[in-house]
Amino acid sequence: MNQALFTANNLWMMLCIALVFIMHLGFSLLEIGLTRQKNTINILFKNFFIICSGLILYYLIGFNLMYPGDFNGWLGLSGIGLELPENGLTEAYAEGGYTYWTDFLFQGMFAATAATIVSGAVAERIKIGAFMIFSIIYVGIIYPISGSWLWGGGFLSDFGFYDFAGSTLVHSVGGWAALMAVIFLGPRIGKFKGKKIFAIPGHNIPLAATGVFLLWFGWFGFNGGSVLSAETSSTSLVLVTTSLAAAAGGLGACISSFMVFRNFDVTMFMNGVLGGLVGITAGADLMSPLEAICIGLIAGLIIVLAVKLMDILRVDDPVGAIPVHLCCGIWGTLAVGIFGSIASLNQLFIQFASVMTIGGFCCLSACIILIPLKKVYGLRVSAKHEVEGLDIHEHGMDAYADFGLNQH
Amino acid sequence: MNQALFTANNLWMMLCIALVFIMHLGFSLLEIGLTRQKNTINILFKNFFIICSGLILYYLIGFNLMYPGDFNGWLGLSGIGLELPENGLTEAYAEGGYTYWTDFLFQGMFAATAATIVSGAVAERIKIGAFMIFSIIYVGIIYPISGSWLWGGGFLSDFGFYDFAGSTLVHSVGGWAALMAVIFLGPRIGKFKGKKIFAIPGHNIPLAATGVFLLWFGWFGFNGGSVLSAETSSTSLVLVTTSLAAAAGGLGACISSFMVFRNFDVTMFMNGVLGGLVGITAGADLMSPLEAICIGLIAGLIIVLAVKLMDILRVDDPVGAIPVHLCCGIWGTLAVGIFGSIASLNQLFIQFASVMTIGGFCCLSACIILIPLKKVYGLRVSAKHEVEGLDIHEHGMDAYADFGLNQH
Amino acid sequence: MNQALFTANNLWMMLCIALVFIMHLGFSLLEIGLTRQKNTINILFKNFFIICSGLILYYLIGFNLMYPGDFNGWLGLSGIGLELPENGLTEAYAEGGYTYWTDFLFQGMFAATAATIVSGAVAERIKIGAFMIFSIIYVGIIYPISGSWLWGGGFLSDFGFYDFAGSTLVHSVGGWAALMAVIFLGPRIGKFKGKKIFAIPGHNIPLAATGVFLLWFGWFGFNGGSVLSAETSSTSLVLVTTSLAAAAGGLGACISSFMVFRNFDVTMFMNGVLGGLVGITAGADLMSPLEAICIGLIAGLIIVLAVKLMDILRVDDPVGAIPVHLCCGIWGTLAVGIFGSIASLNQLFIQFASVMTIGGFCCLSACIILIPLKKVYGLRVSAKHEVEGLDIHEHGMDAYADFGLNQH
Repeated sequence: MNQALFTANNLWMMLCIALVFIMHLGFSLLEIGLTRQKNTINILFKNFFIICSGLILYYLIGFNLMYPGDFNGWLGLSGIGLELPENGLTEAYAEGGYTYWTDFLFQGMFAATAATIVSGAVAERIKIGAFMIFSIIYVGIIYPISGSWLWGGGFLSDFGFYDFAGSTLVHSVGGWAALMAVIFLGPRIGKFKGKKIFAIPGHNIPLAATGVFLLWFGWFGFNGGSVLSAETSSTSLVLVTTSLAAAAGGLGACISSFMVFRNFDVTMFMNGVLGGLVGITAGADLMSPLEAICIGLIAGLIIVLAVKLMDILRVDDPVGAIPVHLCCGIWGTLAVGIFGSIASLNQLFIQFASVMTIGGFCCLSACIILIPLKKVYGLRVSAKHEVEGLDIHEHGMDAYADFGLNQH
Repeated sequence: MNQALFTANNLWMMLCIALVFIMHLGFSLLEIGLTRQKNTINILFKNFFIICSGLILYYLIGFNLMYPGDFNGWLGLSGIGLELPENGLTEAYAEGGYTYWTDFLFQGMFAATAATIVSGAVAERIKIGAFMIFSIIYVGIIYPISGSWLWGGGFLSDFGFYDFAGSTLVHSVGGWAALMAVIFLGPRIGKFKGKKIFAIPGHNIPLAATGVFLLWFGWFGFNGGSVLSAETSSTSLVLVTTSLAAAAGGLGACISSFMVFRNFDVTMFMNGVLGGLVGITAGADLMSPLEAICIGLIAGLIIVLAVKLMDILRVDDPVGAIPVHLCCGIWGTLAVGIFGSIASLNQLFIQFASVMTIGGFCCLSACIILIPLKKVYGLRVSAKHEVEGLDIHEHGMDAYADFGLNQH
Repeated sequence: MNQALFTANNLWMMLCIALVFIMHLGFSLLEIGLTRQKNTINILFKNFFIICSGLILYYLIGFNLMYPGDFNGWLGLSGIGLELPENGLTEAYAEGGYTYWTDFLFQGMFAATAATIVSGAVAERIKIGAFMIFSIIYVGIIYPISGSWLWGGGFLSDFGFYDFAGSTLVHSVGGWAALMAVIFLGPRIGKFKGKKIFAIPGHNIPLAATGVFLLWFGWFGFNGGSVLSAETSSTSLVLVTTSLAAAAGGLGACISSFMVFRNFDVTMFMNGVLGGLVGITAGADLMSPLEAICIGLIAGLIIVLAVKLMDILRVDDPVGAIPVHLCCGIWGTLAVGIFGSIASLNQLFIQFASVMTIGGFCCLSACIILIPLKKVYGLRVSAKHEVEGLDIHEHGMDAYADFGLNQH
């Protein structure tokens, strides 16, 4: 390989880092937009905390847990902090795809995503301290361990599991924790009363929509960078399948929700786009454009059904994180056994078993963190604080000081 | 050509895809910001619909209409859907500039832009269903046909027409449709009463300004990617001319509007920036920096004059889409005959004749869609729905649930 | 060097241009978010003016002042406007890093930043005309002259001063002018009454947070592009040190402010992130990841102390521009003498002396502009205009026409 190709590859990966980084803004705006104004500062604080603590934790321990080198396939740790390996800056490091520094930062930007997904589901009622403790442990330890099982060369890698950019390893890992956390927390006050379900409308839909656009934008780096080089045919196919799945996801959810609810619901549209993106993530490099559209359309339908199901099950997830990241994450992972170049019944079984394995581990881990946390510290703010808003009580400030606001 | 250069070229084009994509967020925020809050959800819905349906349509038919290969120069169709051609992923495909997948996605991102331009002009009064039908036909069929005439190697290409990145083929194609649609729709209730003109102020200028910044940002990819490779001298010149024209456009509109209205009007400034960008688009690779500044300054002046003219003609275009995309699109196309390396009286004539040809086709096409649509389905929401807002009536939700709002 | 490597290098620099450009949106949103709604249009106007006039001025004179070629080391001017030098588009121009056009635009995007920093500090009370005059002179003349002393090969370069991407040459150059301007202007009405200090809360914290995320995003280009090529090891290290310093800066400010004020202050967190970014900028290519974290943590602490100090000194800086850009700019420059690969007592002295030299020049220059400007034209709007808002009086429009607003 020559220096120019190495430079182009590494350059692509660095730009993908920037794109994945901006997804954190996307997640923040989506979460803000779909919740109430009184908890805006709290959401921003959580999201700044996640990206900042996530990177530092990934520096300290996460990267070494996730990529431990030769290990037993279950758990390994190659050190503390970053130490430039011999050849870490040469083409020998990763087949000329990128340097050690690029590797760390790309993976670090991914890591924080898992906690961001949880943040949306638990919004408007979790104690900030409880969230900080949970996310430190989950991002610092749980995410890298489960990641090591496939991407670090662990036992799921030997098993034949395929998850290109993390429908399972990133999105459902976040999604399972979100589900557990929401069950432990319970619904927001006023969401369910007897048999009735009350919609709690988001307060700033333009910001939520901006978040969705930025997430799609960032996904070019999330999936495109997962090629781990700028290799022309794979990267360009991945951008096409990613975009078509997003488009089909949006249309699928739009059509499904129009057929069920008879109106043009922009929130469903938005979550459909995200569902399509999550759905294509596991097999973005394996699918034809038409297969990507099919995966996206089904993801859009899943979004509408899952949102409905959440209401039936009395699970309160303010931003739809569970339908998007858990349900479509599972769907996308299974889709690798159904569509695309490695589809087979055997592969479908491998995908299913791996999803269950990761799911079991994540749920168990989340419980092990949440149960003592609930007993010792408490997960939920007081009813008074919840009703009056976390911004004023946990952060002592308002998000929109000059605006006339309706409290509800 | 070596693999490294092919990789670098394709990589540049992929990043330009991401940049052109984010222009759709820019357009959305600009349109939201310059209209009233009661129609915000409607605008977001339209814009999500445009990008999602636009990509799927371009996959199904648009790309094959626009680049039909050898054809009669007027109308051709090379197939349905995408089929990877032999050599589609090698340097043989496009002189090493990009792969077939990259080609499709870059052009697909462009295609949806035409409908986005229309969206702004018809905002706050069009039926969502009518807009969806119009934009499907316009993006799926009309835009690719007129595009094929030059970029697909059709008769305008033989004629000597020059339009580097689409002052005419993208911007005025959208602009003509916007003009037709606005004429068929009529002005918003309350805009004109007798001889009086009432300004209807936009409700969220920071979002509009964010849109303008994002559009400029995305234009680096729109114009930069139109080099169709990362060739060092062309791409870097294009970024310089694009940026200087944008800057000069903003200043030109600011100075003009200050001289006319005696205040520092930020909306004019913003539309001036966009006018400069549209103006430079046809000849961004042909101009010197100084010529780019001249084109931008004149575009800024045109914006101010055109906004004034629109009021005189009683044409209601809430976001200024017609001054920006139609008027400056025409100006930019003609400017190729006046400034830059291929300027000549003959070229100016070719540019003018081509503008008229495309304009005639677009206006005619728009009428052919709009007239039956108006008769059969209706274009405009009821007065009650218009006054109370499209969000609540067409989408059943509010954009800003927690805010105290003024209805007007 | 081969063509492919030159292409990859130039491509990286072009994308860094786009990233630095988007920082101007970041600065705008940060400034809007942290001030009152009644001055929003004014802030947007200033920021559009800065980027547009900044680029044109840099075209006219700035680039030639900053990179005068062989000169006396203090002041030189190589011409007016841009003239493509022989070899300006070949690998010979800048060791194959980029073309002449790329060079101009990258440096031009930097130049406007200095005025943007001032904009935040003087917000809500400066006359728009005074700001425009000040920023034209400061960006067009002062910034390029001081820049020429190091980056143009002037006397500070011979002296051994090191400032990788401009902790001093960009950030403190803006910061000193901000300090001078704030002293000449005085505090906003209502900020200080007798011994009491009144917080004036920002009106749109989500926009401010968006600004911070975008600034971090843009900083990948600001620091990454300052390598002046896509050289794999330097660029990837720079992105790592930049990100870790930002993360540590946020956490450092968060922890410090929690220990002092006992709440989780998102504004401090945000300014801590920015402080970390400014702090790492002078030595981003020299530091290990651990050293970057240390520099960031200390920058975060400095933010909290400096904000407190500003209140004690009765200096009113609505957005914290002085703590972020001046204080952390100085800290980052000195840190090159303390941490990293060229640290030494001698280097620390050189850094200190250079900071003082630039600081003296900037303060003096700012006074020379501000004193006659204050006498002849006046710096500050009338009390009536300040209380009622600059938007309505200087720009004749509102930012949020449909919202119920509280005047304060």
